[in-house]
Amino acid sequence: MPVCMRDIEQLAINTIRTLSMDAVEAAKSGHPGTPMALAPVAYVLYNDVLRYDPASPGWPNRDRFVLSCGHASMLLYSMLHLTGVRRLGADGRPVDQPAVSLDDIRKFRQLDSRCPGHPEFGHTAGVETTTGPLGQGVANSVGMAVAARWLGARYNRPGAELFNYRVYALCSDGDLMEGISTEAASLAGHWKLSNLCWIYDDNGITIEGETSLAFSEDVETKFRGLGWNVLKVADVNDLPALRAALAASRQSDRPTLVVVRSVIAFGAPNKQNTHGAHGAPLGKEEVRLTKRAYGWPENEEFVVPDEVLAHFREGIGARGRQARESWEAALAQYKNRWPDMAEEIERMARRELPGGWDAGIEPFAADAKGLATRASSGKVLNQVAQRVPWLVGGSADLAPSNNTLLNFAPVGDFGAASPGGRNFHFGIREHAMAAIANGMALSGLRPYVGTFFVFSDYLRPSLRLSALMGLPVIYIFTHDSIGVGEDGPTHQPVEHLAALRAIPNLVVIRPADANEVAEAYRAILSLTHTPAALVLTRQNLPTLDRSRLAPASGLLRGAYVLADGSGKPDVILIGTGSEVALCLDAAERLAAEGIRARVVSMPSWELFEQQPAEYRDSVLPPDVRARVAVELGIDLGWSKYLGSGGRFVGMKGFGASAPVGVLLKHFGITVENIVAQAKSALAAPRA
Amino acid sequence: MPVCMRDIEQLAINTIRTLSMDAVEAAKSGHPGTPMALAPVAYVLYNDVLRYDPASPGWPNRDRFVLSCGHASMLLYSMLHLTGVRRLGADGRPVDQPAVSLDDIRKFRQLDSRCPGHPEFGHTAGVETTTGPLGQGVANSVGMAVAARWLGARYNRPGAELFNYRVYALCSDGDLMEGISTEAASLAGHWKLSNLCWIYDDNGITIEGETSLAFSEDVETKFRGLGWNVLKVADVNDLPALRAALAASRQSDRPTLVVVRSVIAFGAPNKQNTHGAHGAPLGKEEVRLTKRAYGWPENEEFVVPDEVLAHFREGIGARGRQARESWEAALAQYKNRWPDMAEEIERMARRELPGGWDAGIEPFAADAKGLATRASSGKVLNQVAQRVPWLVGGSADLAPSNNTLLNFAPVGDFGAASPGGRNFHFGIREHAMAAIANGMALSGLRPYVGTFFVFSDYLRPSLRLSALMGLPVIYIFTHDSIGVGEDGPTHQPVEHLAALRAIPNLVVIRPADANEVAEAYRAILSLTHTPAALVLTRQNLPTLDRSRLAPASGLLRGAYVLADGSGKPDVILIGTGSEVALCLDAAERLAAEGIRARVVSMPSWELFEQQPAEYRDSVLPPDVRARVAVELGIDLGWSKYLGSGGRFVGMKGFGASAPVGVLLKHFGITVENIVAQAKSALAAPRA
Repeated sequence: MPVCMRDIEQLAINTIRTLSMDAVEAAKSGHPGTPMALAPVAYVLYNDVLRYDPASPGWPNRDRFVLSCGHASMLLYSMLHLTGVRRLGADGRPVDQPAVSLDDIRKFRQLDSRCPGHPEFGHTAGVETTTGPLGQGVANSVGMAVAARWLGARYNRPGAELFNYRVYALCSDGDLMEGISTEAASLAGHWKLSNLCWIYDDNGITIEGETSLAFSEDVETKFRGLGWNVLKVADVNDLPALRAALAASRQSDRPTLVVVRSVIAFGAPNKQNTHGAHGAPLGKEEVRLTKRAYGWPENEEFVVPDEVLAHFREGIGARGRQARESWEAALAQYKNRWPDMAEEIERMARRELPGGWDAGIEPFAADAKGLATRASSGKVLNQVAQRVPWLVGGSADLAPSNNTLLNFAPVGDFGAASPGGRNFHFGIREHAMAAIANGMALSGLRPYVGTFFVFSDYLRPSLRLSALMGLPVIYIFTHDSIGVGEDGPTHQPVEHLAALRAIPNLVVIRPADANEVAEAYRAILSLTHTPAALVLTRQNLPTLDRSRLAPASGLLRGAYVLADGSGKPDVILIGTGSEVALCLDAAERLAAEGIRARVVSMPSWELFEQQPAEYRDSVLPPDVRARVAVELGIDLGWSKYLGSGGRFVGMKGFGASAPVGVLLKHFGITVENIVAQAKSALAAPRA
Repeated sequence: MPVCMRDIEQLAINTIRTLSMDAVEAAKSGHPGTPMALAPVAYVLYNDVLRYDPASPGWPNRDRFVLSCGHASMLLYSMLHLTGVRRLGADGRPVDQPAVSLDDIRKFRQLDSRCPGHPEFGHTAGVETTTGPLGQGVANSVGMAVAARWLGARYNRPGAELFNYRVYALCSDGDLMEGISTEAASLAGHWKLSNLCWIYDDNGITIEGETSLAFSEDVETKFRGLGWNVLKVADVNDLPALRAALAASRQSDRPTLVVVRSVIAFGAPNKQNTHGAHGAPLGKEEVRLTKRAYGWPENEEFVVPDEVLAHFREGIGARGRQARESWEAALAQYKNRWPDMAEEIERMARRELPGGWDAGIEPFAADAKGLATRASSGKVLNQVAQRVPWLVGGSADLAPSNNTLLNFAPVGDFGAASPGGRNFHFGIREHAMAAIANGMALSGLRPYVGTFFVFSDYLRPSLRLSALMGLPVIYIFTHDSIGVGEDGPTHQPVEHLAALRAIPNLVVIRPADANEVAEAYRAILSLTHTPAALVLTRQNLPTLDRSRLAPASGLLRGAYVLADGSGKPDVILIGTGSEVALCLDAAERLAAEGIRARVVSMPSWELFEQQPAEYRDSVLPPDVRARVAVELGIDLGWSKYLGSGGRFVGMKGFGASAPVGVLLKHFGITVENIVAQAKSALAAPRA
């Protein structure tokens, strides 16, 4: 048994271990090895280090703990139970029920439990972020540390340091192998996030066997190269060494990596230090033997000694309450002196925007030459950002192309020396950018991130987590089609609209002109629990003459009748984004031939599907079966709106390198073709 | 002007520079700065270092050059033109036409040019891989270096070293910021790929401004931590220093990173060392001033001095021809002694499989309990791999779960000491895994890679490039739905089938039972220019009784009538994968109620769409409008097969953590619901 451990400490640690083992055993699935190995880390972090009040898990200045190796979820659930973390009500305030009851733990991985297989933000109080997909949690933690810096810079006042929390993340070999973690670590080093500490579980075991099968990095040297402070703890069971390392991390002027050597499934006589202990229950007999090795009642399950609960109450419970109460006292005083600032803090916590946040959005005058929607987006973003101070963000090194830069004074760049800056330079690291944005959103900020649409693929795993967690992150994707032109097929998205529309709880908006862009910002900023993807052109688009056409506010309903002849239409032309103007031209040509064409602008399928059936049928009357959809992407999903009588004008495969005008002709995305397809649909309703 | 450069060298380098400048100027778009900066590197590499015969750009043992910073495409096109690289015919043999003519360069970025905006494999001979999306090229280069090692291990014989090529990649800050490059570098270090050299263009400039905005890594230290040999060249114009570094790289026992300090747009008096020179033409006047600085005819364009062409002919041309001819002589001798091995090499180059490659595939007996398709996949993969020696691959640390391990003797693990191993341990690095597979496929191997289906998101950018390049990489995705069960929504793909179906030139197959898995391997292995995604269950599926049902070979047509009543069906039940068995049960229940239900197994939309309309209509008769599709994913795209009268039984959002049986009931994926939906469709053909 380990050195320098008091009996109560040992008892607490073994309680974490046995709860985890028993829960996995009961569920007949799960990951016992890592919770058993890392119980001492969790114990020290929670009981000695975290400034965290279990009675108030939503306290804005709490230290954050991220379990990046989410498969070790029972480690976290054990801590939430043992430290007595409370549940949060619908209003975000704590209610006097446990976040994780012993019954939840008994029902680990069952439908009605607060203990799902991987930790899920929003499902269980005390879970700071959803983890499981490796690398995401550590990258989130960078965003949380960024937010601490930014919030401190904006809201702290002499004598009222409201935001100074620290962020700790526990991570595995897998987290560090994933490229996203290096991207995130590189930014953390660049930004000198000394309030960030990653604890690396160096256990030498992966699913396929020994880590050495695929991993021979000198992790310490790599992280020094990334600008980190690196510390080592040779034995995870050496509590003083853990405490010393965590204390040293607080003295560093850089982010800290603590490399902790551990033994997976510590204490299991036959399974410790084997990959068999990673992702499957130990088995009844091995559990018994392990408990024996711990000096634990062999045949009892889910044992929680009273003195362990008392120990945590006296430790994190007392320390946390005191810290939170003195913070609340400081906030009360702060409110008197800086009521506006205090109001911002409260709004942010409720995911509300300042009153009149959209009053600065100016309409765009009709203009046949027009401008690219990426350009109008840049204007509207700046108008909105002036009234939403915590709207912050940036691009993966494409700000001048994405038009994501905030350019009004006194907005500056976020950095080590300028933590209040609102423009973020993420470098060419799309994946970490999105995961960092998730971390910022989890901390109350309203982040936006930008890149070329085709590179939405690079950040897709993090975007999925924005959607799964219900975080209103704003994704600004420009260069949205073969309209990119000469850069060619590597830079021309064709499948990406469909790929994004596939993601649940994501709103995708592809506006047709500058005024639809303005309305898109209205729609997107209003979202509180849904991320949005704004899909924008590189090339100029006419700003439509709304005196002759329906108002752009129709965008808020997802699709709307933009132009219509008199009487029932013969054919409906449905366009999105840059293709709407083509549809308008085609409708005019058809009118000249006596064919009544309705033009529907359909910037967002998701918003349209939220409308009542009557509205949807009014836009797309079921008995008008001659329809043409025009979109510079592949046709996946369009049958839903086209029915069997419809025609699709778009892409059938990858693009090519040439000027945009040449490409449009080459791929048949022309007014002539739309007209021809409309006639074809009219002539033969079934293709 | 730089030190130690002979006049002809200077002339050659400035020819590269001015060709690049002029091409970008003529195209009115492109990236002039990097070709101007790196011209000396390209010059030294091609003329002094690469073992490469411009007359035979398909020579299997050529050294590979990868331009990972693909936006600098004119650097590559200039070299292909100046060194006289030949075009390749449809049969892969060189024809006596330039791969890149001066006219192609004049038409840079135009539709009919061999010089698209970014280098495209297959479009232009001498382009080893498609680059542009940052990080992909360097990761591809790891795959090429792996292939060199593997091919050498299998085919080299004493006195006949057929495969010993080296791989050089030129990369930018952006390549190194992307996480994929660290993943790939980590593996290259782990595998001690001493035949690999990355040349890092350290120019201090990115699109948003100075690299220091977002990048303060100590790159050298980081790469030492990754197990690399690191060298520095302080001035890119110092040719002896470049040569010395590249020579030293050949002596290393590890992969080498050469950090080369360069000046973007070198020589442009007003634009050099600015981000304005990155992605836009210099402008007519600046071009003139730059040419003046080079001592170049100011008002002439696309100037190629004869002596420069002669210099390359005498350099790389003569050296390359000699190397290639002696290799061919060696091959001729080799053929006599080891004809079987020689035949393999030739088949591989033609992307052909050995005769009788599928003869080892054994049918599975009907079995109500059945087995998971990931398990049958593991069996079939092993049967096929025994007859296709260059079928190699592995998993991102999930081999025991993905069943991707080749387990017959004498297959071993690929590694530094075992370069002939066929099992690859990629670690938890999905993105690099896929890009490395692309590099292996570009070198003639037939790679497969595995991970959980939900993590297909992590490798999506590389999968897209498999499709764009037409590389027959095999993606084995297991744990394909909420069938994952307890691991919960982070691990349960719901949108991924739709997201993959959106990608052009990708075949997605989700087999319904073990015999469909066997046929899926037949379909997939037969592909020569299309990647495939095999989508497999975690949970057991019954092995269907084919004596009572249609044969599994129907899979080859994408969809087929699996079970049918007599006479015209009342309703069609369409299932994929694990839902086909549910459809069969539902059809029986419907039959008991006197409703004739046809069951269609539809494992692959893409294969189905390749069938003639008559076949498709025979499977899904247009006049049977009552249809139900059952798939454990979201419904995007299903309208195409359901029409307006159909019903969809599947997922509406993310999954949850619980045992699979509980989840299926919870989400209504049940025989009862299918029966109910079928009746609903019959009762009211329009939803």
